[in-house]
Amino acid sequence: MPLDTPDPTDPVFALHRGGKMQIAATVPLNDSDDLALSYTPGVARVCEAIAADPEVAHEYTWVSNTVAVVTDGTAVLGLGDIGAAASMPVMEGKAVLFKQFGGVDAIPIALDTQDVDEIVDTVARLAPSFGGINLEDISSPRCFEIERKLIERLDIPVFHDDQHGTAVVTLAALINAARLTDRDLSELKVVISGAGAAGVAIAKILRAAGVTRIAVVDRSGVIHPGRTDLGNNPVKQWVATDTAPWARPGTIDDALDGSDVFIGVSGGTVPEAAVARMASDAIVFAMANPNPEVHPDVAARHARVVATGRSDFPNQINNVLVFPGIFRGALEVRATVISEGMKLAAAHAIADLVGEDLTESYVIPSPFDARVATAVSRAVTDTARREGVARRPY
Amino acid sequence: MPLDTPDPTDPVFALHRGGKMQIAATVPLNDSDDLALSYTPGVARVCEAIAADPEVAHEYTWVSNTVAVVTDGTAVLGLGDIGAAASMPVMEGKAVLFKQFGGVDAIPIALDTQDVDEIVDTVARLAPSFGGINLEDISSPRCFEIERKLIERLDIPVFHDDQHGTAVVTLAALINAARLTDRDLSELKVVISGAGAAGVAIAKILRAAGVTRIAVVDRSGVIHPGRTDLGNNPVKQWVATDTAPWARPGTIDDALDGSDVFIGVSGGTVPEAAVARMASDAIVFAMANPNPEVHPDVAARHARVVATGRSDFPNQINNVLVFPGIFRGALEVRATVISEGMKLAAAHAIADLVGEDLTESYVIPSPFDARVATAVSRAVTDTARREGVARRPY
Repeated sequence: MPLDTPDPTDPVFALHRGGKMQIAATVPLNDSDDLALSYTPGVARVCEAIAADPEVAHEYTWVSNTVAVVTDGTAVLGLGDIGAAASMPVMEGKAVLFKQFGGVDAIPIALDTQDVDEIVDTVARLAPSFGGINLEDISSPRCFEIERKLIERLDIPVFHDDQHGTAVVTLAALINAARLTDRDLSELKVVISGAGAAGVAIAKILRAAGVTRIAVVDRSGVIHPGRTDLGNNPVKQWVATDTAPWARPGTIDDALDGSDVFIGVSGGTVPEAAVARMASDAIVFAMANPNPEVHPDVAARHARVVATGRSDFPNQINNVLVFPGIFRGALEVRATVISEGMKLAAAHAIADLVGEDLTESYVIPSPFDARVATAVSRAVTDTARREGVARRPY
Repeated sequence: MPLDTPDPTDPVFALHRGGKMQIAATVPLNDSDDLALSYTPGVARVCEAIAADPEVAHEYTWVSNTVAVVTDGTAVLGLGDIGAAASMPVMEGKAVLFKQFGGVDAIPIALDTQDVDEIVDTVARLAPSFGGINLEDISSPRCFEIERKLIERLDIPVFHDDQHGTAVVTLAALINAARLTDRDLSELKVVISGAGAAGVAIAKILRAAGVTRIAVVDRSGVIHPGRTDLGNNPVKQWVATDTAPWARPGTIDDALDGSDVFIGVSGGTVPEAAVARMASDAIVFAMANPNPEVHPDVAARHARVVATGRSDFPNQINNVLVFPGIFRGALEVRATVISEGMKLAAAHAIADLVGEDLTESYVIPSPFDARVATAVSRAVTDTARREGVARRPY
């Protein structure tokens, strides 16, 4: 039986049967008195109160605690463009993680369009029903434009997790890896393999965190201003401009030679010899799933700190450490945006939880560390208040 | 304090605080083994299985048990066009009723547009995420066009509850009222007050059930082909044509004179004198909420069967008897539509539950009669199979 034919006795399919989530009422509905409060005629008074003052909606509906997990199915996990229907198991999984780790009610929304403007229009029209929008598994470079347009149009937080969740958790791990090896972020030479959603967002957050020497590598080698094949990709153009002149023409092997940090979000491979030519105390985050760009055991022969995206090796860099707490905090203070400042604060909050326990095999907390979402949420709410983007500032 | 200012100690507002529903995971998420099954890497196999065969989605996601409760906020309860945000308490209430009475997972979706084509496009793009679409509180005559276009475009059930839920439950009550008074539906003279979503849908279902003598009354009197003010309302044009020549020019008082049945879904008022001039064994369904078109105690002086939409009088005609079971059945067999046949079968199933207990004050089961949703659901699944619109015919 091929892997993609469901066998109901297979543990994965058995678990997924009927889906992974449900709706639950939080009010009693057992008799006509209950109905008269929750539904007509009582509910009309709540509607009228909101019509008179839209702010009331945030206290008396579930909207203020909800997030739409929106995809078009174009970049699902490592599977690529499998379409809306086939993306639903991932969106449901994401939704239940939102609840489990952040107490956020998330709704999976898989859209039957891959047109940028149709996606933007559709999500904008849904906005009154949600407190925030989590974009998910939308292919690059369309994801950048969709996110930008929605942020412009909406006054609720819009967050593309494949970009920013990954960027925040990567920065958190890098902060601790640098601390462990007694270096400042500003002195690190960093090579990022992959110029999609994650790679570009990691480059941006590292820049914001003070890293000045970054080279981003795609299938054609290091991205630099001399590349003639970046034509219609404004984000790669930004990478080329922003990382010049430090990022110079060459292959990924050239870039790694003497570098301090490798961050892999590409699904490609890096030969052992290239890792061996990195600087001493090298840091290798080989985050491709399920197959890291270089096997962590191989990387560990040459690098001091090794991390992956996998749960079966030390230092799992998993954005479940980020998105539940980010939205928990943003929703709590009704932030209008999730700003660069909030993302940086979230990364520092995650890194700080490791504290005195920092070792080569513990630069990032476990996904099941219950302190994480609370710490991230607090970092986000504090920053939102400081930046003046909290509509509920108390 | 005016009625529409929320007082947190008021029972209605206290109950609504934080909303009335939440998401709950149906799978464990307590350790990395759980995560590996529900999320990466396990989930990828379910995605691949769906990509290879879209039918798999119906067994292994929550989509097959979900309904979007969609509104544009233009006709919310009796409050009118209060907008998307203010409609959410009603949509949430509807969603929890879906779960409580039908076991259906319903998501409230309030749209930030009132444009017919934008609503249709938006809902069509959401379709991969839902097993059915329940349209709610959308103003007439736009609701008819939106429903028609969505039915044409989608292969999942689309059901405007304000039309069809009300029509089905009204027919159920009328079947029993006619049975009680030993008359056939085909001999009844029926006056419907209100030519919006509910009134038109009631006229249609009564026609389909064999009622031939119907007059529909709007603010300008009986709708008939001679009316020159029906110009841009194709649905009122249909009513005029379809009820002619029986429906003749006149006021509601003229129409009621000698009629057997009054069905009020208008919010208007009917004077006692007009009820007094109805035929003997008159049937009065004064369903406007919270104020019936004629007080039931007043109507009872002249009519043999009196029903309202209120829970504090006998014979509450409430569409919660309909929509949970209708969708429960439609989802179970993956019906492509909710057909006229299913609606008629649902009405008969509801009426039949009253059985031998039929009296003037018991022509319709209680909203809390646990047999109703099951009976309606079975009527729908049986009809769907018979009509060949069940995609899961076993």
